[in-house]
Amino acid sequence: MNRITSLFGIKHPIVQGGMVWCSGWRLASAVSNAGGLGLLGAGSMHPETLREHIRKCRAATDKPFGVNIPLMYPQIDEIMQLVADEGVRIVFTSAGSPAKWTGWLKERGITVAHVVSSSYFARKAEAAGVDAVVAEGFEAGGHNGREETTTLCLVPTVCDAVSLPVIAAGGIADRRAIRAVEALGAEGVQIGTRFALTQESSASEDFKILCLNLKEGDTMLMLKKLAPTRLVKNAFSNAVYTAETAGASEEELRLLLGRGRAKKGIFEGDLNEGELEIGQATCLLNRKGIQTVEEVMKELTED
Amino acid sequence: MNRITSLFGIKHPIVQGGMVWCSGWRLASAVSNAGGLGLLGAGSMHPETLREHIRKCRAATDKPFGVNIPLMYPQIDEIMQLVADEGVRIVFTSAGSPAKWTGWLKERGITVAHVVSSSYFARKAEAAGVDAVVAEGFEAGGHNGREETTTLCLVPTVCDAVSLPVIAAGGIADRRAIRAVEALGAEGVQIGTRFALTQESSASEDFKILCLNLKEGDTMLMLKKLAPTRLVKNAFSNAVYTAETAGASEEELRLLLGRGRAKKGIFEGDLNEGELEIGQATCLLNRKGIQTVEEVMKELTED
Repeated sequence: MNRITSLFGIKHPIVQGGMVWCSGWRLASAVSNAGGLGLLGAGSMHPETLREHIRKCRAATDKPFGVNIPLMYPQIDEIMQLVADEGVRIVFTSAGSPAKWTGWLKERGITVAHVVSSSYFARKAEAAGVDAVVAEGFEAGGHNGREETTTLCLVPTVCDAVSLPVIAAGGIADRRAIRAVEALGAEGVQIGTRFALTQESSASEDFKILCLNLKEGDTMLMLKKLAPTRLVKNAFSNAVYTAETAGASEEELRLLLGRGRAKKGIFEGDLNEGELEIGQATCLLNRKGIQTVEEVMKELTED
Repeated sequence: MNRITSLFGIKHPIVQGGMVWCSGWRLASAVSNAGGLGLLGAGSMHPETLREHIRKCRAATDKPFGVNIPLMYPQIDEIMQLVADEGVRIVFTSAGSPAKWTGWLKERGITVAHVVSSSYFARKAEAAGVDAVVAEGFEAGGHNGREETTTLCLVPTVCDAVSLPVIAAGGIADRRAIRAVEALGAEGVQIGTRFALTQESSASEDFKILCLNLKEGDTMLMLKKLAPTRLVKNAFSNAVYTAETAGASEEELRLLLGRGRAKKGIFEGDLNEGELEIGQATCLLNRKGIQTVEEVMKELTED
């Protein structure tokens, strides 16, 4: 028992990160059923799709679960109203300022955590009234902070800056890393990569197998002129790299990226032309096949 | 007692990283006298300067100390012979392949550790016969690996890859981080930044004060087309950033860098035009002034 397990009413202080194209109701409910906190990733869902996933998740578990909402979501008013109407009790916000929505969510009795990449943003989140912060380091997959601060440096800095409970994220894939971030002061962990590669994740099997065979250096933080994003090196990211090292502008990168690349890569399994978002912690998973959430949770929680 | 303290004959498994323009005989002997392992940084010394520092270090401590030698050192044959002739018992090698020199050093009874940025290089170092590896993550100051793997991901990956004792480096500045990397499997730590900013470091006072006031995001890994190097953001690094994002070539960056920039910044205290090498862990040192090595070692080792 600590502040994170109490806050969310969960057994283990392990949050499954909300991830585009990976974390629908199957993954979130499996994590919640195993005693962690499952999060539906709204970032890759239309509002009505999210509604369906919330209802299916509730049918699949009687345990607490939540929704991750990137604050740059295009129909943000609609999705917030929907989440409240559907009776969601826990919301994780990211990729934007928590000032506007935290109060609105809290007035409706919703517990709010916000993802930050620096102690500066952690203090802003505390001032906005969130219940917990997720301190996410440079090693995390997908969208990432501009500070490039690693989990090892970020977590204790955020713990020193706020009195809120801190959830560590980025680079956490096994029991050793959980013990490590506990030593840094975190009271919980948010794990993305490891859960993205389980059976219950909605990512394509080809994507999962590719990611389970990556080594150090096989992912890279790219697209820094748009939003820094950690990607697997492939034909698409090589094209981005070539453009970036030749000085491509924001507009040129936007054209190169186009639309729907993450879906194409993660969900549809186009390993060459897709945008393959995953964290550095893949280098620790090389001997593992595609596991179930139950197997992963057992490894993460055994003494 | 563990394999690292036994290997080097030291009390605490804390190594002071060899750093350009910071780690002369004063710093190394102070760390050794406090029960850690001090290293002279040969990278910024002419051979005869290193000889003088070895002799002064020996006069200042009866405890074990060592020398860090970047393997790209221009007069590498001369410096290796000098180190052997002066009876140095411990050498840390970095920035190059350990295949050529490890055997030569070991034949002379010298204990050898090698700095790596991936499990691939760790296995190479083990095959070359080194006694320990330093697994140094992305958050470290100065020269850095191309894989950009953070300490949190790198240390357990290296521990899984080799049977040698592993020393963790990068982002370690306080007791919390030491406990964290122990949980990851490290048997020792190499600390640079924290010691670079002590009284005994030969860095300029202006550099130390600047670094003790940095926040997350105030250092950045740059010069990736040459050798990736973590620098404080200043006028010089802004010029590098502008050139890099505009697609500057290796040759253009080499011209921009010129010669003697690290000395100008770290040693002479030119905070605008110097190359200011320091690690991300500075963000944890904001409330601290310039401490003595003894004060730092006390904080790092107290229960």
